[in-house]
Amino acid sequence: VDSKLPGVGTTIFSTMTALAQECGAINLSQGFPDFDPPAALVAALGEAASAGHNQYPPLAGLPQLRAQLAAQLARYRGVTVDPEAELTVVPGATEGLYCAITAVVRPGDEVIVLDPAYDSYEPAVTLAGGRTVHVPLTPENFAIDWDRVRAAITPRTRLFMLNSPHNPCGSTVNGEDLATLAELAERHDFLVCSDEVYEHLVFDGAAHQSVLQHPALRARSFAHYSFGKTFSVTGWKTGYCVAPPALTKELRKVHQFVAFVAVTPVQHALAAFLEAHPDYPGTLAAAYQARRDRFLGALAGSRFRFRPAAGAYFQLLDYGAVSDEPDTVLCERWTREHGVASVPVSVFQAEPPPGQTLLRFCFAKSDEVLEEAAKRLCAI
Amino acid sequence: VDSKLPGVGTTIFSTMTALAQECGAINLSQGFPDFDPPAALVAALGEAASAGHNQYPPLAGLPQLRAQLAAQLARYRGVTVDPEAELTVVPGATEGLYCAITAVVRPGDEVIVLDPAYDSYEPAVTLAGGRTVHVPLTPENFAIDWDRVRAAITPRTRLFMLNSPHNPCGSTVNGEDLATLAELAERHDFLVCSDEVYEHLVFDGAAHQSVLQHPALRARSFAHYSFGKTFSVTGWKTGYCVAPPALTKELRKVHQFVAFVAVTPVQHALAAFLEAHPDYPGTLAAAYQARRDRFLGALAGSRFRFRPAAGAYFQLLDYGAVSDEPDTVLCERWTREHGVASVPVSVFQAEPPPGQTLLRFCFAKSDEVLEEAAKRLCAI
Ligand SMILES: CSCCC(=O)C(=O)O
Ligand SMILES: CSCCC(=O)C(=O)O
Repeated sequence: VDSKLPGVGTTIFSTMTALAQECGAINLSQGFPDFDPPAALVAALGEAASAGHNQYPPLAGLPQLRAQLAAQLARYRGVTVDPEAELTVVPGATEGLYCAITAVVRPGDEVIVLDPAYDSYEPAVTLAGGRTVHVPLTPENFAIDWDRVRAAITPRTRLFMLNSPHNPCGSTVNGEDLATLAELAERHDFLVCSDEVYEHLVFDGAAHQSVLQHPALRARSFAHYSFGKTFSVTGWKTGYCVAPPALTKELRKVHQFVAFVAVTPVQHALAAFLEAHPDYPGTLAAAYQARRDRFLGALAGSRFRFRPAAGAYFQLLDYGAVSDEPDTVLCERWTREHGVASVPVSVFQAEPPPGQTLLRFCFAKSDEVLEEAAKRLCAI
Repeated sequence: VDSKLPGVGTTIFSTMTALAQECGAINLSQGFPDFDPPAALVAALGEAASAGHNQYPPLAGLPQLRAQLAAQLARYRGVTVDPEAELTVVPGATEGLYCAITAVVRPGDEVIVLDPAYDSYEPAVTLAGGRTVHVPLTPENFAIDWDRVRAAITPRTRLFMLNSPHNPCGSTVNGEDLATLAELAERHDFLVCSDEVYEHLVFDGAAHQSVLQHPALRARSFAHYSFGKTFSVTGWKTGYCVAPPALTKELRKVHQFVAFVAVTPVQHALAAFLEAHPDYPGTLAAAYQARRDRFLGALAGSRFRFRPAAGAYFQLLDYGAVSDEPDTVLCERWTREHGVASVPVSVFQAEPPPGQTLLRFCFAKSDEVLEEAAKRLCAI
């Protein structure tokens, strides 16, 4: 068969997790917690199924879950969202992102992607017949280089992919970034697809900046969220997408034929948990910052250089002082030889800068695991 | 926004279920059971979550679930399938169908769809840039008219959508149909996408005919299955797709960026249930045939004409002796006025034959509900 995605192999996350399992390595590659979700949430899943919530939910998601989500957005972002016309529950943010891209990108359209970027954006653009225009983040601190963005905009620019907190870099955007983006999006009439799945993991006292909080952006954005990240249930594959009514309408048209709906008992469990614990997401930043600091503290004596992640649950380590081998080679070798699996940053880039020496480590792990991983990394 | 799916509204199933709820009508529209799934399966979901199975599963699905599925295919279809290279667990057959179509259809390709057809096929073809070529089933008994199929084949024909047992018609294909299809597919070098989600619901002693049982077809087919239909958990949104290694590879490339994986605790629950109850699917045909017969028996005194469904859990009723109004109009009115919701067959057809007077009723319902619905229908 002649492939429609010839450059694509198995996603790096699955590959590295499989390798980690094969080698018995500590798995800091794929982004998922090694600790349990809240016990009340786990219990709620069994209760939902036992209570008989096992058939199709409404297309846009359970009304009581959407109501809780609107309440969350009011509480944490200070925004009012209409759960009927603007909010859609999806089977994972990946599906939401895919549907948003597919709903608005046509053959020949250009989509601006900031590199490094999460690996699902470009294949979705390709399958829609669009062209991905890669714009690198600044190499020093993975900020958006707005001059380069401006230079990349053309009359064919249809969509801009934003991701903050950033995977894999752990960087975040600020209010000025969003103001610049709003101005460009209006001037050149493009849409924004904002991947905010790590919204609750912003550290050092900073606040998450959402496109929903900027009226001009909100009017032309899809904003994507993930329960998996927020509630430590990555395997529950449920998220949601907020967009203005006209964009939501197009998203749902695609979504209903792509995956139709997200799992019913999971939606009931999340609704019940959020109703009882609306303040739970607010506890995450401090908890994850402590994990980050534990990991980085234990790396103090290592030969790696780093800038503490400002958000998300990934820490980049620069191994330039240790080796000049390519990250893909080292990543695999260190998994085998030192028993710590990570992800090479170059796989997130169309054109990795020559000499870049960065690996991504997930710190959504228990204290002992982070300590042991750091100990092994210190020995390199 | 300029829609990429301008002709598409909300899927009929969601629309009619919402109307049924609004009117307090008996809902025989959307295909889902009103009775509980096996208690052991429901319990297994809670147990899987409590046991800590809440993070990402492997991309192709849990190995133990895939092993059980291969065993099921050996048991019920007498075929050997490699769970590693040929079987992919997906978040619902709709997603599997979408990914298969997206993986192989390119702009300009033609896809043959037999009308009436499940409503997700054509939008998937459209989004892939393909053209849907509609070929009507025979009006008398919804069989495949192979002369019309032959006439529809062109050098651009890339894919043939097969669906047996058939939704909405309840018809099934026989071995001769599959032999003819195999011969045409080889001669004209097209692929087959076979929607077999109702595989276990074949009545009156007949056996399900799967593309997997015909080597020439198997070599060029995606075969799609659904746990939701088989285990009465339509809200669990999990299914699987079997295809030769080269096609599976392309399917997974798309799938990993569309929805990535199906829900982990659901996969554990299904694996545990299948291990303990491998013979459960074999009990379904008799149970559903009894429901069909109860419904039809209770309709004996009605003015509807029907041919008993050969498979699936849908019964068509011809209301020609009662009214000559369009099915879309009657369907809504009878939901409101007589308290029984159904689905108009014309929405599954590109060009509904003039004078067609058919509604689809789902009989995956409890005895009392079927009796009461039939009583109301007899009063029309
Ligand atoms: C969709 S699997 C990948 C999980 C993740 O978000 C990551 O590791 O970056
Ligand atoms: C995907 S919702 C529709 C359920 C179903 O298969 C049907 O009613 O035909």
